[in-house]
Amino acid sequence: MTKKFPPGKQSNAHLSELAQRIEAPPISWLMDQKLKYPDLISLAAGFTDGPSLPVEEVQKIFKSITRTKKRSMEILQYGVGAGRDLLRDLTASNTAKLDEQDANNPAYHSDRILITHGSQQFLYLLSEALFEKNDIVILEAPTYFVYLGMLQSFGVQSRSIPMKSDGMDIEHLKATLESLKKSGRLSSVKLLYLVSYFQNPTGYSTSYAKKKAILKLVRSYEKHAGHPIYILEDAAYRELKFPATPEQPSMLSLPHARDRVIYSSTYSKPFATGIRVGYGFVPEPLRTILLRIKGNHDFGTANLLQAVVEEALRSGLYSGHVHQLQAEYAKKSEWMCQSIRKYFSSQVRWNHPSGGLYVWAQAPDHVSTGPDSRLFKACLKERVMYVPGSYTYGEDLTPNKPDQSMRISYGSASRSEIQKGIKRLGAALHAAE
Amino acid sequence: MTKKFPPGKQSNAHLSELAQRIEAPPISWLMDQKLKYPDLISLAAGFTDGPSLPVEEVQKIFKSITRTKKRSMEILQYGVGAGRDLLRDLTASNTAKLDEQDANNPAYHSDRILITHGSQQFLYLLSEALFEKNDIVILEAPTYFVYLGMLQSFGVQSRSIPMKSDGMDIEHLKATLESLKKSGRLSSVKLLYLVSYFQNPTGYSTSYAKKKAILKLVRSYEKHAGHPIYILEDAAYRELKFPATPEQPSMLSLPHARDRVIYSSTYSKPFATGIRVGYGFVPEPLRTILLRIKGNHDFGTANLLQAVVEEALRSGLYSGHVHQLQAEYAKKSEWMCQSIRKYFSSQVRWNHPSGGLYVWAQAPDHVSTGPDSRLFKACLKERVMYVPGSYTYGEDLTPNKPDQSMRISYGSASRSEIQKGIKRLGAALHAAE
Repeated sequence: MTKKFPPGKQSNAHLSELAQRIEAPPISWLMDQKLKYPDLISLAAGFTDGPSLPVEEVQKIFKSITRTKKRSMEILQYGVGAGRDLLRDLTASNTAKLDEQDANNPAYHSDRILITHGSQQFLYLLSEALFEKNDIVILEAPTYFVYLGMLQSFGVQSRSIPMKSDGMDIEHLKATLESLKKSGRLSSVKLLYLVSYFQNPTGYSTSYAKKKAILKLVRSYEKHAGHPIYILEDAAYRELKFPATPEQPSMLSLPHARDRVIYSSTYSKPFATGIRVGYGFVPEPLRTILLRIKGNHDFGTANLLQAVVEEALRSGLYSGHVHQLQAEYAKKSEWMCQSIRKYFSSQVRWNHPSGGLYVWAQAPDHVSTGPDSRLFKACLKERVMYVPGSYTYGEDLTPNKPDQSMRISYGSASRSEIQKGIKRLGAALHAAE
Repeated sequence: MTKKFPPGKQSNAHLSELAQRIEAPPISWLMDQKLKYPDLISLAAGFTDGPSLPVEEVQKIFKSITRTKKRSMEILQYGVGAGRDLLRDLTASNTAKLDEQDANNPAYHSDRILITHGSQQFLYLLSEALFEKNDIVILEAPTYFVYLGMLQSFGVQSRSIPMKSDGMDIEHLKATLESLKKSGRLSSVKLLYLVSYFQNPTGYSTSYAKKKAILKLVRSYEKHAGHPIYILEDAAYRELKFPATPEQPSMLSLPHARDRVIYSSTYSKPFATGIRVGYGFVPEPLRTILLRIKGNHDFGTANLLQAVVEEALRSGLYSGHVHQLQAEYAKKSEWMCQSIRKYFSSQVRWNHPSGGLYVWAQAPDHVSTGPDSRLFKACLKERVMYVPGSYTYGEDLTPNKPDQSMRISYGSASRSEIQKGIKRLGAALHAAE
């Protein structure tokens, strides 16, 4: 009873392969730094703006959804696995509207929607449904780093396609698909993943023309792959566009997209990140499979969370809030850009965002931005933090991951934190140049 | 562009092994019956009692947690992966209290807790961390059928140990472990799973003596297994004990249990199933791995859900509600037992619950209760439904799964539905005898 096995050591060999592969996420290291230096200004976190959170809206919604005993009982009970009917209907019509499509377009049918515990859960369910170890996913370079960590845990390989200001480099994508075909690896390609609006981390959006070209190109390789190659359009930042930025349709609106394009998005970022409700449009047979997997995860997203978002959408409080938020982030972005112009040397290249939460900046070629770099250490000394760009590149680029970039977020920082943070970052950059 | 692949057929061969294995859950077939016959009385669902849901409590909680702008902002923002600090502290102290243990007992330390999106998610995360295809889990027979479906999706094998009224048959467990040792399969045994309080589906609880014996026996085989064999104590129904039923300590309270026993439970069933908050106590290195996997699922359970439960616990509204609920289910169970005495023949054996949501009944030997049985069809004709017992046995018992039992729930049915439902079920049973 008191004997331990194995005596004196604890290995992980008895755990699953996934457990043995999974690594600590880079974000946890960044969070540790924040704990270590409480006076640190974090321009690293992907948190959203605190003061803009819909406090009054949520108070109204709580009142409204608990007005009658009957309604309260319904939302405090289990729901159905795929998500609330009305929430799926509202999600379908809102997405069709954003895409300027007829609500009867079958690509936007609410039966194709799965409501999830944040869009992160959607990405996870899809990964479970698609991937075996050594499968291949085609990625933007750079891309969403939590997705990279997920792929790593599944043992999935990446093929990185450089990101241009209007989306993936199509010629590079073509060359990559050709090379996969020649090496006989095309049959392992399961998915192309793109964050199509105000991408995390670059802030770039994929143009409609490019979406069309990507779909056409990928489909032309399916014959050689021997199976469908899905495209996952992650539109998590779509509703965080700035007021002056024109709306762009998603891939769902393209002809022949319905059976290959998977579209995911979220209500968490544009409404409240503490209310985790995301969703995806999924073709069959994937949707049925995702639904079954989700049944094993949790039987369906908490009915209360769904009811809050549903009421926000139904009442118009959601769209009112989103409009305010778009203006707010445009303003915060402008504060950051002004400070960058003031405090960064002209050797630092950076983009001017048109939506989303991030400025993507490139230090001069000889300046490394990685977590062990002189620059990062100088930043900690100055008490400011960014996300090192090297976190955002697929493992196929190892050991030559680009190492000069920084993701700088104006999401949760206040005006004065943005200004002070950029000043500190500018000082550290000058010191490192 | 218009060419489809593969032409004219759609196979699932391009999906993951999990996707190819996963089957439609039996519960979805039962739910289809309910849709087909709207006047059906379902004694099948594991739903909880509607009128007892904490409507006023939740209204109070909403008010309280949104009283100040600062607090509202905090709960509407992202939280941390492992769960809110205060919620974990309250969970730790409540569990220690239920077990009559000192709050300083390290087995109950809040650092060992992971808050999840219902305890179902906890079961899932643990499965991901432990299992490879063809691994073995030792199960009670019968057991929780959603867990069986999950194991099936992971390609995990089961070894079923008959359930007695005080828990697993220890002699049978010993024989099974011996047989696994002899066949060289002990190294594949990763986990023993037990639903230790008012088990789903039998209503039986595992005695403390048996918990002790199970832990001792399992540990004595670890040397031959070559790795730790964990025990998962799923206490989901623990707080639904009837007022007259004595409290029983969990396995966490046993000496030398801390590094092998994983304890999971939930706030959903005793409070509100629409608010999905569960938790588990997990030893290292598992906890770190579960936390990383959860980070990939959803970064942490929705902060709003956690804040509601935390405030319920902190304010005492939770414990007040649980006491009411325990009395309510005791009453509902009694209504069901009275009706059973009145309407079932003496040939039907059944248990008198002391907690939980279910009566477990055995039809006479020659009466099958399966979904294709004469009895089940007669029940549909009478407009009543139960969960066929065959759903609740591990695949290792195929094709000879016990087929005479029924899980009959008084959870969500009203008094008149319980009485009418049992009358109808009695009539169907008489017809089938």
